[in-house]
Amino acid sequence: MGMTMTQKILAKHAGLKEVKAGQLIEADLDLVLGNDITTPVAVNEYKKFGDKEVFNKSKIAIVPDHFTPNKDIKAAEQCKYIREFANEKGIENFFEIGEMGIEHCLIPEKGLAVAGDVVIGADSHTCTYGALGAFSTGIGSTDMASGMATGKCWFKVPRALKFVLKNKPAKWVSGKDIILHIIGEIGVDGALYKSMEFFGDGLDYLSMDDRFTMANMAIEAGGKNGIFKVDDKTIEYLKEHTKREWTVYEADNDAEYDEVYEIDLSKLKPTVAFPHLPDNTKTIDKIPEIMIDQVVIGSCTNGRMSDLRVARDILKDKKVKKGVRCIVFPGTQKIYLQAIKEGIVEDLVKAGAVVSTPTCGPCLGGHMGILAKGERAVSTTNRNFVGRMGHVESEVYLASPAVAAASAIAGKIENPENVV
Amino acid sequence: MGMTMTQKILAKHAGLKEVKAGQLIEADLDLVLGNDITTPVAVNEYKKFGDKEVFNKSKIAIVPDHFTPNKDIKAAEQCKYIREFANEKGIENFFEIGEMGIEHCLIPEKGLAVAGDVVIGADSHTCTYGALGAFSTGIGSTDMASGMATGKCWFKVPRALKFVLKNKPAKWVSGKDIILHIIGEIGVDGALYKSMEFFGDGLDYLSMDDRFTMANMAIEAGGKNGIFKVDDKTIEYLKEHTKREWTVYEADNDAEYDEVYEIDLSKLKPTVAFPHLPDNTKTIDKIPEIMIDQVVIGSCTNGRMSDLRVARDILKDKKVKKGVRCIVFPGTQKIYLQAIKEGIVEDLVKAGAVVSTPTCGPCLGGHMGILAKGERAVSTTNRNFVGRMGHVESEVYLASPAVAAASAIAGKIENPENVV
Repeated sequence: MGMTMTQKILAKHAGLKEVKAGQLIEADLDLVLGNDITTPVAVNEYKKFGDKEVFNKSKIAIVPDHFTPNKDIKAAEQCKYIREFANEKGIENFFEIGEMGIEHCLIPEKGLAVAGDVVIGADSHTCTYGALGAFSTGIGSTDMASGMATGKCWFKVPRALKFVLKNKPAKWVSGKDIILHIIGEIGVDGALYKSMEFFGDGLDYLSMDDRFTMANMAIEAGGKNGIFKVDDKTIEYLKEHTKREWTVYEADNDAEYDEVYEIDLSKLKPTVAFPHLPDNTKTIDKIPEIMIDQVVIGSCTNGRMSDLRVARDILKDKKVKKGVRCIVFPGTQKIYLQAIKEGIVEDLVKAGAVVSTPTCGPCLGGHMGILAKGERAVSTTNRNFVGRMGHVESEVYLASPAVAAASAIAGKIENPENVV
Repeated sequence: MGMTMTQKILAKHAGLKEVKAGQLIEADLDLVLGNDITTPVAVNEYKKFGDKEVFNKSKIAIVPDHFTPNKDIKAAEQCKYIREFANEKGIENFFEIGEMGIEHCLIPEKGLAVAGDVVIGADSHTCTYGALGAFSTGIGSTDMASGMATGKCWFKVPRALKFVLKNKPAKWVSGKDIILHIIGEIGVDGALYKSMEFFGDGLDYLSMDDRFTMANMAIEAGGKNGIFKVDDKTIEYLKEHTKREWTVYEADNDAEYDEVYEIDLSKLKPTVAFPHLPDNTKTIDKIPEIMIDQVVIGSCTNGRMSDLRVARDILKDKKVKKGVRCIVFPGTQKIYLQAIKEGIVEDLVKAGAVVSTPTCGPCLGGHMGILAKGERAVSTTNRNFVGRMGHVESEVYLASPAVAAASAIAGKIENPENVV
């Protein structure tokens, strides 16, 4: 029996010729990641381990992005604590505000994750880098501590699901709609501890940004990781962003997948996940009138250039509905700068949106756009659990940037077709 | 005995030919202002008064700017509460994020305060509009409630101080340096319940932005209000920003001033207020090495175009010192847009600053840049009380945008001359 992409990467990093699903292995790590919420806990654990030198000063990244610019004194103290740790240990990739962004937008942009890597991050959406053909997964703060010390992590080799994407999606159907469709089909535990592996000629129509969005949300189906076949677009992206060498792993023809899903992208419609789970999806044509109070465009899921471009295309020369707050979060300083250069920020502000400095913001109920009791948001983020963006009686509807922008104009969840 | 500018405005609004310092009067109000912190309290009081119609739907302004975009659930609930009140009462000037900014930048920009007005605002820096030749002062939430109901407010007519500004200030000396110099001279209670009235040929060298900054900080000397003689620049500003009619009041030649201060602007130097009071000032040449962690440029004091332009002039093609967080807060969406058009935002981001959506942010320890224990900030804001920007053991040094920008580059409090 052959191996999946994920299994091949894990085998190589464990120094083994072959691994099988369910096997326990110890793999070498190419990157250990943490943010301002998880790293302080990891540092506490690290100090208990003996507080030695880190395994590799260039293979650790710490990105204070959740409650930054510092939301309150506690956030300030946490950032100070991890900044001092990074300085003390000589960690090269500590990203201060001004040079940073949302971790899962920043890491690929900085070339810190590449095809063939094994990456762990103390953040559940670390699975994002699977878009690059890496094995990348979220772990807890204790594993982050152990990873920083040893450069290794234990894994149970995951079983796998295969997604064969076919044909070209319609105009307003993006990576976000595809992954919401998939989560809606298989459920929030449909890929529990499995790798979600993406193949098919449909990839030709998916930008790297689409793929980051999809890999980002693998965890929302319970997946251990999401991973995309490496193609010309991947290689082009890597050439542009990294100086590191990468390795392309292909799944064996006889790799074992628990299920194979063939998805005709041309038949998908813009899709929205209703409260309070990402698998509670409806297509845009089946949605009743849902009035909204806020629109959030951005985040580690949809804060990249193509996301901002589509939001601009819809909002340009139009107006955010009176009474609706539309808040845009570019993924990184570099993305923000590019959006300014392309006139996107100008168009969004003229339309009545506000554009924030890059931060995770309200996605996880952090800051910069929290919902009151009874308020509803359409958001391009990745989770709509109860109280995720604020009050336990608020609601989050997950959608693509196109649907979010259209909804900002309409003041209710809206099909982009109806506003352009 | 004649009347001061302030006394003349108050007399007119009280329907009296003459008023004297110390006299209790009831004046008609041209504008009643509140923000997201003070308005909820005012609305509670308003409902106790009987919850009737407001006195005038176009003469009330509510600007949620302190903890917006909503910092947390409490902030969200407060904004929701005042939004619903504004909708219910038909208040025309409720400014949602996207159409707003920091109240004291927004109100003049929207033409809602003009020369000759009597303005009260439930925010201590409401004195800002004195730059336009208005009587404008901060009041409590109860007075805001009463003002919304009746359109009137009781005042004790203030005594006055006269400031005669002479000559042209040196290159890096701005309105901020002048007002810090004055507060340093007279102390934080030097103008207690007095009007600070500004005259002299030195006004010719002060932009409207300089004057807004100076009037804004009248309260930091304990002043009831700050007010500037109306000149061609004021009229030009009013013509550009308002459709309302204005009235120019001039002080009588024999108006009574407790003190007359003649200030030779050409002799002033960039001035910094050390912790923990705005009157603890030192000129830039007398400052020891003070290492800093954060720089804040913006706020109701210094978040206007000329402030951003000078910050850009200094930061362009340079870099914020590694380890220093430089956060820029444009005063309004309009200012932010103009700063984008002029390439200022681009230059600031390239230099390593982050640019926020307009909000009061960390100025009052709100959000978006709070300080940890032991951290120091150079800030263009107006107050440096103990714990103002975060931890009680943090420190805030008040300065001009030029000094703040220079300090961001140097990583310590720095004279702009040394970095350009």
